[in-house]
Amino acid sequence: MTYESLRRETYLANMELKAAGLIVLTWGNASQADREAGVFAIKPSGVSYEALRPEDIVVCSLESGEKIDGDMRPSSDTPTHFELYRSFKGIGGVVHTHSRHAVAWAQAKRDIPCYGTTHADVFCGSVPCARELTDDEIGGEYELCTGKVIAETYRERGIDPLAVPGVLVACHGPFTWGNSAMKAVENAITLEEAALMAFETELLSGGPAEPVKKALLDKHYLRKHGKNAYYGQK
Amino acid sequence: MTYESLRRETYLANMELKAAGLIVLTWGNASQADREAGVFAIKPSGVSYEALRPEDIVVCSLESGEKIDGDMRPSSDTPTHFELYRSFKGIGGVVHTHSRHAVAWAQAKRDIPCYGTTHADVFCGSVPCARELTDDEIGGEYELCTGKVIAETYRERGIDPLAVPGVLVACHGPFTWGNSAMKAVENAITLEEAALMAFETELLSGGPAEPVKKALLDKHYLRKHGKNAYYGQK
Amino acid sequence: MTYESLRRETYLANMELKAAGLIVLTWGNASQADREAGVFAIKPSGVSYEALRPEDIVVCSLESGEKIDGDMRPSSDTPTHFELYRSFKGIGGVVHTHSRHAVAWAQAKRDIPCYGTTHADVFCGSVPCARELTDDEIGGEYELCTGKVIAETYRERGIDPLAVPGVLVACHGPFTWGNSAMKAVENAITLEEAALMAFETELLSGGPAEPVKKALLDKHYLRKHGKNAYYGQK
Amino acid sequence: MTYESLRRETYLANMELKAAGLIVLTWGNASQADREAGVFAIKPSGVSYEALRPEDIVVCSLESGEKIDGDMRPSSDTPTHFELYRSFKGIGGVVHTHSRHAVAWAQAKRDIPCYGTTHADVFCGSVPCARELTDDEIGGEYELCTGKVIAETYRERGIDPLAVPGVLVACHGPFTWGNSAMKAVENAITLEEAALMAFETELLSGGPAEPVKKALLDKHYLRKHGKNAYYGQK
Repeated sequence: MTYESLRRETYLANMELKAAGLIVLTWGNASQADREAGVFAIKPSGVSYEALRPEDIVVCSLESGEKIDGDMRPSSDTPTHFELYRSFKGIGGVVHTHSRHAVAWAQAKRDIPCYGTTHADVFCGSVPCARELTDDEIGGEYELCTGKVIAETYRERGIDPLAVPGVLVACHGPFTWGNSAMKAVENAITLEEAALMAFETELLSGGPAEPVKKALLDKHYLRKHGKNAYYGQK
Repeated sequence: MTYESLRRETYLANMELKAAGLIVLTWGNASQADREAGVFAIKPSGVSYEALRPEDIVVCSLESGEKIDGDMRPSSDTPTHFELYRSFKGIGGVVHTHSRHAVAWAQAKRDIPCYGTTHADVFCGSVPCARELTDDEIGGEYELCTGKVIAETYRERGIDPLAVPGVLVACHGPFTWGNSAMKAVENAITLEEAALMAFETELLSGGPAEPVKKALLDKHYLRKHGKNAYYGQK
Repeated sequence: MTYESLRRETYLANMELKAAGLIVLTWGNASQADREAGVFAIKPSGVSYEALRPEDIVVCSLESGEKIDGDMRPSSDTPTHFELYRSFKGIGGVVHTHSRHAVAWAQAKRDIPCYGTTHADVFCGSVPCARELTDDEIGGEYELCTGKVIAETYRERGIDPLAVPGVLVACHGPFTWGNSAMKAVENAITLEEAALMAFETELLSGGPAEPVKKALLDKHYLRKHGKNAYYGQK
Repeated sequence: MTYESLRRETYLANMELKAAGLIVLTWGNASQADREAGVFAIKPSGVSYEALRPEDIVVCSLESGEKIDGDMRPSSDTPTHFELYRSFKGIGGVVHTHSRHAVAWAQAKRDIPCYGTTHADVFCGSVPCARELTDDEIGGEYELCTGKVIAETYRERGIDPLAVPGVLVACHGPFTWGNSAMKAVENAITLEEAALMAFETELLSGGPAEPVKKALLDKHYLRKHGKNAYYGQK
């Protein structure tokens, strides 16, 4: 089988997403890129996680977004993943879910403020909520435009996609990314927890609360990232 | 055993409902119709899911609603299922649960607004909350009237039951349907998730929020349904 | 072993309570009475559910409340169970938990209104919240007084304990009962679900909502109870 | 292996923390002190709970906080544990988590009021929320200062750390302690439940509610602690 290890890693990330409780029915998918080979691998569309096998993973081109290997149809969200790989050069994995608490913020069309270190450890600032698509975008290349609107959000607001590796799409749900599919899964888990914690923080505060101060935001992010990181084993 | 495959499919749908976490104690039931044979099969009343066996499933007439095969008493909600099969000709399965978040909306006597694509993928618009039954309806054929009030809701509000395959009964809970019992189970799962997400969306918004725009509603529904659907495998 | 079947049934009810997710650490206990033998059996104090064995169950007198058989110390809540058996002659099992949603209502010192049929199927009206104990009651026979205050609540408000088989103790948590320990466990499960549903109903309604109408309350209660009950198998 | 039993107990407490559902990914750690040996043992940094083995536990000095035995790097929170052992002489175990409901209160920068007996059984009064660290503290010895700010909170507010064995760090999360790592785990479980219950109590009350009266607070605490305790087996 060609692309065997890429398929296997993509498969494992999808299964981890399910095991983490972020997936209901077939709502969600993980993909992983092999930048050197010019491809990315993604879950097939509408296949149940119980039935999914490594060989079902579909391989697509990083240049055209089209399928180049595999028996099944790729996820209907494939053009969004494709656009994210094209716009954010430093990433190697993408995850999309309908995880409930992140979706609630997306449906409220609100950024998730950074209220604490759980959030700050992964997302260096608010998790932005991208604008709704226009009717033309929805009626046209809907999934591709979803990716374009995400990229536009980061560009226009001057956010570094590596420092804030996750976004909400208004009225839809979250996308996260990382240097691999498995890292994107971890970021999806953190986003969902941070979304719930921020929800409860606001209810306890009677409305939006004060985000963490910049010193704490930077400290926690840099504790885990960058050349002076000291979290984890060497 | 007559009706063996109908019983088996109905049994499996009931067990899936339990596995999905929508059932507490014995609160809920799934049925499936065989339109050609003129029958529908349904869970027996008050039997625990742990003890349920395929042969316990009761078979009833689509014409009279009466039991025509089986050793046990059918669910007390059988007349509601019967009325739904009679009113909504295109459906092949019905599910009733007391799933907690959907019940909360039913107890608040409110439609669940469509706030996002999770909801829109299955329900093309608000999930309506049917009116409370009158004292006469409650004192008379209560379960049959429950079905009639649901049918009345769709008729009077001009809602296509195939486009919005689920409803809330005020002060009671949800009913969903589909072309099979298993599809009705899937729709019950989606309804419960959408109910929770809408609940949190409103709390984050300080009250009712803006439903999704029509273009997105149609897009997501048609992505999964109709002749140009492109979700899933062929 | 004397009282072997009574111990076994009490043990099984305690384990079911744990399996239902109502118990954190060792917070909770179930007891069952044998009215003819003049005894009730109850969980030992502070023993983990993982370690609990049928022979650890302690047997106490229905006349004095004192231990009459068993190697371990009975639950510290034993005097409350004792008082409930003494005051409510028709009951055969009692359960106490700190289940989270019921506790929230108890801490808010509020009755749980009957907002729907899930609640009405078991509790024919609001689940009352008993008053706080006085400092003297707390400083004296605290657990016995807890039972006395529950009995006082039913007597003064004219509530039939068999029609409303559960109560909240202010700032503490729920007690439920039934004709057996296992039935009391079922009622504890229903109370916890009804507490959550009522909580969400109020948040969706912006405050206390309208309880169910009397006709529906009576219908659902009588559907499952009394001589014309038609729920379940004969 | 030196410190074998200390490592084993610390390992088991960490695994119990995971089993109790308080840990997402690698967010959290438990440590245990051996006062006579002048050491404490703690989870290594960033190691997944699935991969953790007793021999991975790191042993540090109670005098300097530095590692004295073990192959891995200790938790990045080690200086906080160290400072707590130094400030609170009577404790033998410390736990840190990002458990969701406790974090919500920490992010709202609020003490958790004592609304009921679940809380009072372990925490004799409000669980305090320590102040935010200054920019200098964050930029300097951040984790050590976290411990110092906790100790300052107890000292300045006159709280006995043995009577209130848990704290929130503003914008971060909870720390709990006890006479062993396992007892600190139990206290972390109680704190998380009490945090959820208090959250729901306030939502049901339309805002902060009335804490329990002093007589009840003392009664429940002393029922489980002190020389007249009568909860549990002798």
